Amino acid sequence: MAGLNLGIVGCTGAVGKEVLRILEKRKFPIRTLRCFASEKSEGVPLLFNGKQVIVEKLTPHCFESLDLTLFCAGRKVSSEWVPIALKSSFVIDNSSYFRMDPNVPLVIPEINPEAIEPQHRLIASPNCSTSILLMALFPLHRKFSLKRVVVATYQAASGAGYLAMQELQEEAKAYLEGRPFTRTIFPHPYAFNLFPHNSPMQEDGYVEEEAKIKEESCKILNDPNLRIHATCVRVPVLRAHAEAVNATFEKPITPEEAYQVLSKARA
Amino acid sequence: MAGLNLGIVGCTGAVGKEVLRILEKRKFPIRTLRCFASEKSEGVPLLFNGKQVIVEKLTPHCFESLDLTLFCAGRKVSSEWVPIALKSSFVIDNSSYFRMDPNVPLVIPEINPEAIEPQHRLIASPNCSTSILLMALFPLHRKFSLKRVVVATYQAASGAGYLAMQELQEEAKAYLEGRPFTRTIFPHPYAFNLFPHNSPMQEDGYVEEEAKIKEESCKILNDPNLRIHATCVRVPVLRAHAEAVNATFEKPITPEEAYQVLSKARA
Repeated sequence: MAGLNLGIVGCTGAVGKEVLRILEKRKFPIRTLRCFASEKSEGVPLLFNGKQVIVEKLTPHCFESLDLTLFCAGRKVSSEWVPIALKSSFVIDNSSYFRMDPNVPLVIPEINPEAIEPQHRLIASPNCSTSILLMALFPLHRKFSLKRVVVATYQAASGAGYLAMQELQEEAKAYLEGRPFTRTIFPHPYAFNLFPHNSPMQEDGYVEEEAKIKEESCKILNDPNLRIHATCVRVPVLRAHAEAVNATFEKPITPEEAYQVLSKARA
Repeated sequence: MAGLNLGIVGCTGAVGKEVLRILEKRKFPIRTLRCFASEKSEGVPLLFNGKQVIVEKLTPHCFESLDLTLFCAGRKVSSEWVPIALKSSFVIDNSSYFRMDPNVPLVIPEINPEAIEPQHRLIASPNCSTSILLMALFPLHRKFSLKRVVVATYQAASGAGYLAMQELQEEAKAYLEGRPFTRTIFPHPYAFNLFPHNSPMQEDGYVEEEAKIKEESCKILNDPNLRIHATCVRVPVLRAHAEAVNATFEKPITPEEAYQVLSKARA
């Protein structure tokens, strides 16, 4: 039977669920699928392609039968378990833990697949805000050579996970009904409100999310001199990040040329 | 008795209500107050400083006893009634109708009060997005000379008026309860969503709100060469606009110098 022996770590989270949906939709060739999550989801049945898959917890030997493991949990899980998974499996890691490691390629398949070399067994995926920014800018960059980017983000609750999406809805309901509400995920009122992205503030005044956009974009476009200024804001939207982008290019570019290039770009 | 004979046009709208609250709070010297709105609010009693004021409809002679009239309704009301009010009263107009008229000063009192000359009987107030942008930038501009601004807005429902604020809440409630909802104010889903500012799109690809920020800023700062790129976005927040601003200055400026100047600026 053709296909890969595939593992998904973090299969019950917002990213893991979306990954499973996409694998189904694209009819990704899978021989066997194993789904992993934290202990509290162990034994829970999931449906994939109409078949039941039972959620397992991670164990030191769980990766041995796998060809490829997708890590869709956070930094902490990746830092502990990716090195173990790599002993027997290829890994694509969606966390930020390995992204800036010079030995790990950071890849958006539509942009820099050539960064993956034969010796690489671990590939990192960029931050969601970086991905949507570069998917729009790269086709223009290839033709007009990007020099400077100013980006303001409008980031949804989904980026903070499934529980954050639930909290936004519950807080909005409480607000509309005039009831008090105690938040457990976000540090600030979120219903009908916005606030600077809730990642830690660095010494230079940027929050980590803003620094990630800059560093990851420079790595993916292989240009350490690219100037990127990001302001990251959480808006009370459930899914889908948006960005307002102002880009300066080396070569002259008209709005018509930009529309033309973007209309032919891969979505 | 000291104070002005003051009229407020559009006293039942989101701006008019806020103006009344501020006049009360600041103990603005008023001898008599007359409140005007559309016919459907005629006869409605309002409370101002603990006293009842009855809402009147506009008539050709209603301005005759007034020293100053504040117009807090839209362009259409201002275009028709400001010329009539000016026959007997000074006018401050909050609509966009007269803002770019070269004979009308466009004023933010903390920034360009000197634009008002003795012959002026009509003063225009800028767009809300322009005001908050320039209040932050002007203290820096005075010292470091502004050259280029990239701004992305996060605009609340309040900018579209009181009914828009109600619609956002009603749509959010319907969404959370899984009920269908028919919008009458906004052209797009707004609950847990965002969309480009709903002012008309111009030929150059900017919406009117974005053009206003540029044109009004150039007029207020008296610099037709100032480069301003604005992206205006409506976010599902009830009150208070926010902006992400990237500014380039003629003179070198450090973050520390910027913080220092802004910490002493008038709020």
